[in-house]
Amino acid sequence: MGMRRGTNLPRMGDFNQSVILETIRRSGQGMSRIELSEATGLSAQTVTNITRRLLDEGFIEEAGRTITGPGKPRVMLRLVPHSRFSIGVHLDPSVITFVLLDLAGTPVRRRVAHTPATEPQRIVAAMAEAVGALIADAGVDRSAIAGVGVAAPGPLDAAKGTVIDPPKLDGWHRVPLRAVLAEATGLAVTLEKDTTAAAVGELWMGRGPADESFLFVYLGTGVGASLVRAGEPIPGSSRNFGEVGHIMVDPYGPRCTCGSRGCVEVVCTPQAIVEQAQRTGALPGRDDASTVEELFTDLCERADRGEAPALDALRAAARNLSVLIAALSNVLDVDRVVLGGPFWSRVSGVYLDVIPGELHGRSATRGLRAIPVDGSVVGDDVGAVGAACVVLDSVLTPRATDLYLDD
Amino acid sequence: MGMRRGTNLPRMGDFNQSVILETIRRSGQGMSRIELSEATGLSAQTVTNITRRLLDEGFIEEAGRTITGPGKPRVMLRLVPHSRFSIGVHLDPSVITFVLLDLAGTPVRRRVAHTPATEPQRIVAAMAEAVGALIADAGVDRSAIAGVGVAAPGPLDAAKGTVIDPPKLDGWHRVPLRAVLAEATGLAVTLEKDTTAAAVGELWMGRGPADESFLFVYLGTGVGASLVRAGEPIPGSSRNFGEVGHIMVDPYGPRCTCGSRGCVEVVCTPQAIVEQAQRTGALPGRDDASTVEELFTDLCERADRGEAPALDALRAAARNLSVLIAALSNVLDVDRVVLGGPFWSRVSGVYLDVIPGELHGRSATRGLRAIPVDGSVVGDDVGAVGAACVVLDSVLTPRATDLYLDD
Repeated sequence: MGMRRGTNLPRMGDFNQSVILETIRRSGQGMSRIELSEATGLSAQTVTNITRRLLDEGFIEEAGRTITGPGKPRVMLRLVPHSRFSIGVHLDPSVITFVLLDLAGTPVRRRVAHTPATEPQRIVAAMAEAVGALIADAGVDRSAIAGVGVAAPGPLDAAKGTVIDPPKLDGWHRVPLRAVLAEATGLAVTLEKDTTAAAVGELWMGRGPADESFLFVYLGTGVGASLVRAGEPIPGSSRNFGEVGHIMVDPYGPRCTCGSRGCVEVVCTPQAIVEQAQRTGALPGRDDASTVEELFTDLCERADRGEAPALDALRAAARNLSVLIAALSNVLDVDRVVLGGPFWSRVSGVYLDVIPGELHGRSATRGLRAIPVDGSVVGDDVGAVGAACVVLDSVLTPRATDLYLDD
Repeated sequence: MGMRRGTNLPRMGDFNQSVILETIRRSGQGMSRIELSEATGLSAQTVTNITRRLLDEGFIEEAGRTITGPGKPRVMLRLVPHSRFSIGVHLDPSVITFVLLDLAGTPVRRRVAHTPATEPQRIVAAMAEAVGALIADAGVDRSAIAGVGVAAPGPLDAAKGTVIDPPKLDGWHRVPLRAVLAEATGLAVTLEKDTTAAAVGELWMGRGPADESFLFVYLGTGVGASLVRAGEPIPGSSRNFGEVGHIMVDPYGPRCTCGSRGCVEVVCTPQAIVEQAQRTGALPGRDDASTVEELFTDLCERADRGEAPALDALRAAARNLSVLIAALSNVLDVDRVVLGGPFWSRVSGVYLDVIPGELHGRSATRGLRAIPVDGSVVGDDVGAVGAACVVLDSVLTPRATDLYLDD
């Protein structure tokens, strides 16, 4: 932190290499050198030099020739998906999800484990064991694993790699998750907030332009938000971007521990929606045997079957969430809103019916444009997939700020 | 928008030139070539080449030698403040402020005019006349004027350079302010939202590190917010970042036109604070002859004199504003909060007494750090000064994204 740093030739070379690799990756079917030069603005000579290096390192391969007009046929270059892999782990209060992705972002293996007790040591040991099993199952060489990304509920102390006091994970206080898991697995570990990881996953797996901007609204045990701006995830200055739990959305809602009322945390979370549904009779009264997840699934199934009180409960929840989304999109000024997270698929029908209209009515820029609202393309595993993409992203995606010389 | 672009040597050269010029500007007293090399990470040869170009163009000058140890005395290089100037205009519903800044960011001339009627044509004509008078008064050559920055209330249509429907400027609808003013003055005109301009002003005039991150909370006729992240202002994807008027801060507050209650717009603005003070008796009842500005000043003076009801009214307003600031800083995850804008100086004492503690109590990262709250260093003219800084910034500040090759 402090002075502005310059850049130099080696930095420029690394950056352009990332640009070429990302452009090939995003092309899907591969690209010729001439197409790469047109797409990136780099000279033919630069493209030739960089692609030679990428071929030597095994990241890309030649994939036949195409004839598109007069002159020499063009050699197509495409990604070698199995040249590198990454592992994503999503730590949730109830379940831990593991995925192994290849360089193209395709999930190769997946595992799910219930979060054992709440003792940090036991959770970390179980995580390390599952990571080992995932690699063995996939038959992948450990040296091809770029690293392990862990998505965890915030707030995090990113500098120390610790999870501070994650809500609903009792017994976790300043757990040095990054260091302990790196020790237990022998792999490089990156810790990221679950919501930010989800946005990175969406950026990687989506087919939007490389420089798109969107707000990601994450529906998990808690509700969170993250931002991608001009193709870059914005993690916040302490990597804790997007703590939205105490933004007020319903002035007539229940009181909150923060002293306000109708905060997101007491109105928009699955637990809050279930409790409200029990109060209105949309769900049968208190049922201490069922988990929040089971009750929430029950509510969504009732709405799917056309039970009016259940449908009303979800519609009211969608309207409340719209107040949050409008507040966030008016502050952040984004092109698009994406909804996702582990609870998303169950409510996507009702929410996508309600939210776009509510958002437009509350948008500060409605005189200028409508803001599209989409469901995540990644699915319920977006936390784990996103965590694996965080690793791929740090290895592969060009970031202009990587050009700065080190302090 | 679309593909990721690479970079090349000319881009790198321009970027490093901006880095050197910014480092010299921020040093105040000037720096030697060796110090520049250490500060920026650039090689001695690169620094020598770039500083020669900057000397030739008149941006910097040699300013004597210092002897700091054995070896050759070092030649100090410093900015030539009067080599370039810029003009900032702040369009407010009640008053238009004009400033002329030199390259060091020092205000050289200032003018204030009451906003005439509300007819756009008359306002633009008056603006053009005032700009001409400002340049003549200062005795500056027009060729040394880098451009005119206009700070205007949002929302803006930045692509078209139009102000859409600014609140409280009746008669303004899609006014093409940028084009009309450029035509009338013969100068390049940049249009920026008042709140974003204020943050750029703070970044330029403040003495924080070049890569600091802060939330700027703007207290004007309306309340707005802007964000500087790692030394870069974040304007939002349509340059309308920071519309906070309908974030709820008081569940027991007055109803708002948006359907909610207790929104920033009906609780935190000078008009809302004055109306509430009249309801509680902190100010004498309805007085249609006085402007909101006069009534607000009256309230602040009563609080200064120790009138308990007036002090209570401002403290309550500060607590409500704290709810907004906590919501924003929890979402945006910033290192610091800066308060400013045309109404700031009148309330700074009471607000700086109340807000830091309220914010800390509501901060999602309070287990990690305390977030400092500061008053703006720029003063009530921050809109106009900021608009002038937007021009200087576009000319002078290195932005990593400027490295990308054009589409």
